Amino acid sequence: MARVLNFNPGPAALPLSALERAQNELIDFQGTGMSVMEHSHRGKDFEAVHNAAIASMRELLGISDDYHVLFLQGGASQQFAVVPMNLLPQGRSADYILTGAWGKKAYDEAKNVGTVRVAATVEENKTYVRVPAQSELKLDPEAAYVHLTSNETIHGVQFHNYPDTGKVPLVADMSSDFMWRKFDVSRFGLIYAGAQKNIGPSGITVVIVRKDLVDGARKDIPKIFRYGTHAENNSLYNTPPTFGIYLIRNVMDWIKQSGGLGQIEAWNREKAALVYACLDELSGFYRAPVKAPARSVMNIVFRLPTEELEAKFIADAKKAGMVGLKGHRSVGGIRVSSYNAMTVDGIRQLVSFMKDFAKTNG
Amino acid sequence: MARVLNFNPGPAALPLSALERAQNELIDFQGTGMSVMEHSHRGKDFEAVHNAAIASMRELLGISDDYHVLFLQGGASQQFAVVPMNLLPQGRSADYILTGAWGKKAYDEAKNVGTVRVAATVEENKTYVRVPAQSELKLDPEAAYVHLTSNETIHGVQFHNYPDTGKVPLVADMSSDFMWRKFDVSRFGLIYAGAQKNIGPSGITVVIVRKDLVDGARKDIPKIFRYGTHAENNSLYNTPPTFGIYLIRNVMDWIKQSGGLGQIEAWNREKAALVYACLDELSGFYRAPVKAPARSVMNIVFRLPTEELEAKFIADAKKAGMVGLKGHRSVGGIRVSSYNAMTVDGIRQLVSFMKDFAKTNG
Repeated sequence: MARVLNFNPGPAALPLSALERAQNELIDFQGTGMSVMEHSHRGKDFEAVHNAAIASMRELLGISDDYHVLFLQGGASQQFAVVPMNLLPQGRSADYILTGAWGKKAYDEAKNVGTVRVAATVEENKTYVRVPAQSELKLDPEAAYVHLTSNETIHGVQFHNYPDTGKVPLVADMSSDFMWRKFDVSRFGLIYAGAQKNIGPSGITVVIVRKDLVDGARKDIPKIFRYGTHAENNSLYNTPPTFGIYLIRNVMDWIKQSGGLGQIEAWNREKAALVYACLDELSGFYRAPVKAPARSVMNIVFRLPTEELEAKFIADAKKAGMVGLKGHRSVGGIRVSSYNAMTVDGIRQLVSFMKDFAKTNG
Repeated sequence: MARVLNFNPGPAALPLSALERAQNELIDFQGTGMSVMEHSHRGKDFEAVHNAAIASMRELLGISDDYHVLFLQGGASQQFAVVPMNLLPQGRSADYILTGAWGKKAYDEAKNVGTVRVAATVEENKTYVRVPAQSELKLDPEAAYVHLTSNETIHGVQFHNYPDTGKVPLVADMSSDFMWRKFDVSRFGLIYAGAQKNIGPSGITVVIVRKDLVDGARKDIPKIFRYGTHAENNSLYNTPPTFGIYLIRNVMDWIKQSGGLGQIEAWNREKAALVYACLDELSGFYRAPVKAPARSVMNIVFRLPTEELEAKFIADAKKAGMVGLKGHRSVGGIRVSSYNAMTVDGIRQLVSFMKDFAKTNG
């Protein structure tokens, strides 16, 4: 059948050209007589792909030489443990800012590693609809780092300005917030992101980390979990997920061919604006819980008057070729994940459907 | 170009039919209008693939309900740390049997976690050419577990009979030894294996672990590293590498269509016999260092009279369409990795080449 409009929250839609490129050479990569996933991770053919993926990411985001760019395994969920294993020495504490379920999970896991504090939480009535103001943060000036989740995929809450943490390194889970636009990497000590939202398939976690933090990180942990191990080996200490890295390379090339992150950002902002405008226009029918200043450009969540109507919305959308719109099982409702691979035209079709649905069922 | 004969040690050749199946439906998986890697890991389409991969593995290996079958990330190298994190309580010790570089690496990493002992090492003159006899093992009857590397990919040393460890659970790194034949899983407490040799692409580690060991495992470690976390969630605690699991499913189906592990084993034994017969016949030219009883069916290592001849062997083989024959950088020489996807005919071509090469250069 024709490709559907895929609003999955991750694993998510990938750019068709990146997939077609993979399909065309899946059996014979660049005339080598084997698939890229059959190549040795230490051979020159794969190494060129690996280094191109890293170089493109550095170029597109403007990442300075003060940072390592690592491709790791285990997902953001593994980083919830690995960040404090590396950066939280015994006798010190780290601060966590909670704006949704993922930040809470990161905090809970860090407790299994060391001493952590909640520097701020905006949880109210068991949900999250905003980010804290700078004045609400109870930051420990001696903290080893401050952790936040820059975009909460489940709650649709996004930081559009990052807090000032003074000299304390800012660590961000950017899984659903990564590479949909250029941003100032130098504001962060460490950024991690699962690839399966904006840049690739599941199975790879990008870690961008300041070199001095790696140098000063704990060494009394298993070697495989030390950032230094992977930094020293250009993420080839052990066998990486080669096919996933290859697909990231393809997506990086697609971003460049599309005009770079400036163009990608413009599309993403246009898409989000279209959906939020529809929600505001039809606010008697659709209810967007997140406060305007924290509305996510990536994950747009809303409710309908009843759960029955939400179920009908999802079913009717599916008939119209639009899938992946169901909100996370923990919160319900509707979620529009609008990552890089979703086109402006796709969002226009969704908005048209939303208007028709409200008219028919409102 | 035509597909080459790929002797890579891993990532390695995959069955062509498994790759072609992936290629055919890479843009549109089973009429769903999206790639399998764009599907949600919690949707019914991927879940069917996930469960089929596990069910086929259980069926082919005859794994009893006493064991969990888990698909994890991080490679065997991560298991070097995760095994003792789970199974080695403070105040106890674990035994390691060293028959090559990978066992040594597992031992060195375990030292970063807890107290470990060398129960036997067969290292001589900085290399490994055999496995220890039962009488050579200095086993601690109170050990938390005994660890061995059932096939050493670099040194080409393989256990063909497993040691008796009494009541102490046997833990095996089977990365290059997994699913080329059926074996008695019930001899083991825990088995782990990177997929990228016999059953799939890199990025997935299979862990088969006895349920009572998981129940009794340490809980004072980060949740993401507890086997129990992944067992309770059918390996869907966090987003798994979905495309790799899909390919494992394809390879499982290929094994079944080929006649099951009995047929796969027959082919693998025939392939190894052909190469070793050639090495023995031409022992004046080729030198196979590993003692006959420990010769690996999977990774066949040998030397030529000079390093110059080895370089020529590799170059001439490449011209003849045979790649991946260079021995590991740490030991040099030639290595023939003969995993499931390598055909008997491919090995016949290699042996023919070896005979010609010896005649011309001997």
